[in-house]
Amino acid sequence: MMTTVSPAPLAEPFYRRVQDRLRRTLQREGHDGLLMLATGNVIYATGFFHSANERPVGAWVPVDGEPILFVPLLEKENAEDGWIADVRTYDEFPGVVHPVLWMLGEIGRRRVAVDTLPVKLLDAARDGVAALAVTDLVERQRYVKEPEELLLTRTAARYADLCLEAILSGTADIVRGGGTELDILAHGMGTASAALSRDHAAAFGRTKLGITGTVHTGPRGALPHGKVIARRPSPGETMIAGIGASLGGYHAESGATFVLGDPNADQRRCLDAMQASNDAAIAALRPGAACTAVNDAALEPIKAAGLGDTLRHRIGHGMGIEGHEAPWLAPGDVTVVAPGMVFSNEPGIYRPGIDGYRTITSMIVGENGVEVPSRFIPVHPWEKRVITL
Amino acid sequence: MMTTVSPAPLAEPFYRRVQDRLRRTLQREGHDGLLMLATGNVIYATGFFHSANERPVGAWVPVDGEPILFVPLLEKENAEDGWIADVRTYDEFPGVVHPVLWMLGEIGRRRVAVDTLPVKLLDAARDGVAALAVTDLVERQRYVKEPEELLLTRTAARYADLCLEAILSGTADIVRGGGTELDILAHGMGTASAALSRDHAAAFGRTKLGITGTVHTGPRGALPHGKVIARRPSPGETMIAGIGASLGGYHAESGATFVLGDPNADQRRCLDAMQASNDAAIAALRPGAACTAVNDAALEPIKAAGLGDTLRHRIGHGMGIEGHEAPWLAPGDVTVVAPGMVFSNEPGIYRPGIDGYRTITSMIVGENGVEVPSRFIPVHPWEKRVITL
Repeated sequence: MMTTVSPAPLAEPFYRRVQDRLRRTLQREGHDGLLMLATGNVIYATGFFHSANERPVGAWVPVDGEPILFVPLLEKENAEDGWIADVRTYDEFPGVVHPVLWMLGEIGRRRVAVDTLPVKLLDAARDGVAALAVTDLVERQRYVKEPEELLLTRTAARYADLCLEAILSGTADIVRGGGTELDILAHGMGTASAALSRDHAAAFGRTKLGITGTVHTGPRGALPHGKVIARRPSPGETMIAGIGASLGGYHAESGATFVLGDPNADQRRCLDAMQASNDAAIAALRPGAACTAVNDAALEPIKAAGLGDTLRHRIGHGMGIEGHEAPWLAPGDVTVVAPGMVFSNEPGIYRPGIDGYRTITSMIVGENGVEVPSRFIPVHPWEKRVITL
Repeated sequence: MMTTVSPAPLAEPFYRRVQDRLRRTLQREGHDGLLMLATGNVIYATGFFHSANERPVGAWVPVDGEPILFVPLLEKENAEDGWIADVRTYDEFPGVVHPVLWMLGEIGRRRVAVDTLPVKLLDAARDGVAALAVTDLVERQRYVKEPEELLLTRTAARYADLCLEAILSGTADIVRGGGTELDILAHGMGTASAALSRDHAAAFGRTKLGITGTVHTGPRGALPHGKVIARRPSPGETMIAGIGASLGGYHAESGATFVLGDPNADQRRCLDAMQASNDAAIAALRPGAACTAVNDAALEPIKAAGLGDTLRHRIGHGMGIEGHEAPWLAPGDVTVVAPGMVFSNEPGIYRPGIDGYRTITSMIVGENGVEVPSRFIPVHPWEKRVITL
């Protein structure tokens, strides 16, 4: 049932290529090297998986020479388990010298690019180096994914789909047995998590893998970021499930709106507008388009259906090492769409006090069209998402 | 079994007092008001619970006048559900104007203090206001907790303890049945989560509540931030459980090292050093002491036992709205300890390839001594943490 191409965790050759591409940009822009401090950037360029906390982790990629990984002593063994030979540790946070200033000291008085920096350290950081520039060159490189990254995204998407399939097939029995949003979500996530672990936990144990999700029913569906609660849905309501899956650190999303019984005319109007919005996003997402224009085109069918005041968010966001990352299919993002970019496609209609609708697919931009690795929505138009309680 | 004083979520009177204290500092330091952008600070000063993501949330507290909550349109209904009357929304991220610059525009050309700021926005932010200062005045105010906050911490600690009690009583059967670290953790967290929900979910539904935790056995115990895996522990090993509990957004920790069978002389040496370190932290944590000196005093018994090279981290961190927050019982933090501060006390011994030891309690600084709301370690010296498999 799962993909026949077995994905593998990204390894040293991939990260070396990532760093070589960064070096070319650094050289062109006149820097001696790049100190990455943003968690997603460090993971992208080194494969050192870690969670952001108060103890900074840094990765230095010089234009000439080998990279250095800077970690707290607490992460020494984890870091030394990776491919980077030069791991340097600081004792503890906060320390007599702030760890980021210590990293800059280890680097020496060079022309340093940084991806981010605590604003309070800016002056002190400038004092310690020959030149300091804050740059988004890593984020720009992350916009376009390599084939190895896309394989992880495609595979992750199937597990998000699997969660939705379990919810579609299991909800009626769960609700008849007195179950709630929490039980429906637990059933879907349990199914998908078990399959993901069975298929990939052994190979991907040192990376990030997992399933996240929410289920909202009835009027709760109008709160895009509401909690999942012990609410038992009733016939006639809509139910939104939004599922994320990560494999090897790469993220994909699938989500669906189900109708608990035959939809009435008002619900059909919303469901049809959602489908039209989903299709408009795919049609507009072409190399050369501006991200903001894709958002405009995708939301137009919802506005044309007279539902413009139910919009609460953009059509989508970039995905990769982070679940939400640039570029954004949103107002204000003039990034030009290019092959290899990955976006969510998530039209949403939110009617406070009444109901909500959201579908989600992951989209990969190709030379000649959009690939949709999330298969649940393409093979389940809303007529197939009706659940009779 | 649980506390007889029933805690309630913090409400408008608490947040008004918090803001009045902030105003007094703002006035003294010559600012017209404070724009908070750090998630923990916004929650602390407004009670608007939300998760950090790319869409900024801001809270403006002027020296004179009512506060303003700035949120993305997506959070409009959530925000309007709170006590702050003036909620202003921006459409979406990134937007044509960065949301933080839009917030500063709404505030007008005043002398603005900010708690943090994306470093890339610093110049543009300065251009838009009469004066801009980056300040840690909110963090400093958060150092000392009010009685209402401490009640939440105390109550949270009991649920972390409950998780450890379930692990102590359940591990032998779980392991005999073939169970692993994952099963032991699930048993403990399931017990504690169910009790927390039963007792408090109804009243605290709009805040943050929950249980987090890790279990590491054998050589895995040497990785303070390692993953919990499907590893079945063996007789003679040690097992570390580290548990966090949140109620009303306030965090407490309890953790223990168990021995799976009678400890040998080497393990006893470690267990005794851990207890001595725990006790030294409590003895040193007195109003007037410097945080860094408390750390030194607490780690001394581990060094005196010849185990200094097994140290991987400081003795503790502040806790409150965030699980880890300043001040830090760590090198470099010269903050003076004061009544109402809350710290973790977590001596740790990590021996790569061999084993690990960590105990955790939460400590509240009083005028005349330390209160330890985490009761598991005080009532379970290591002799009572021996589990016979």
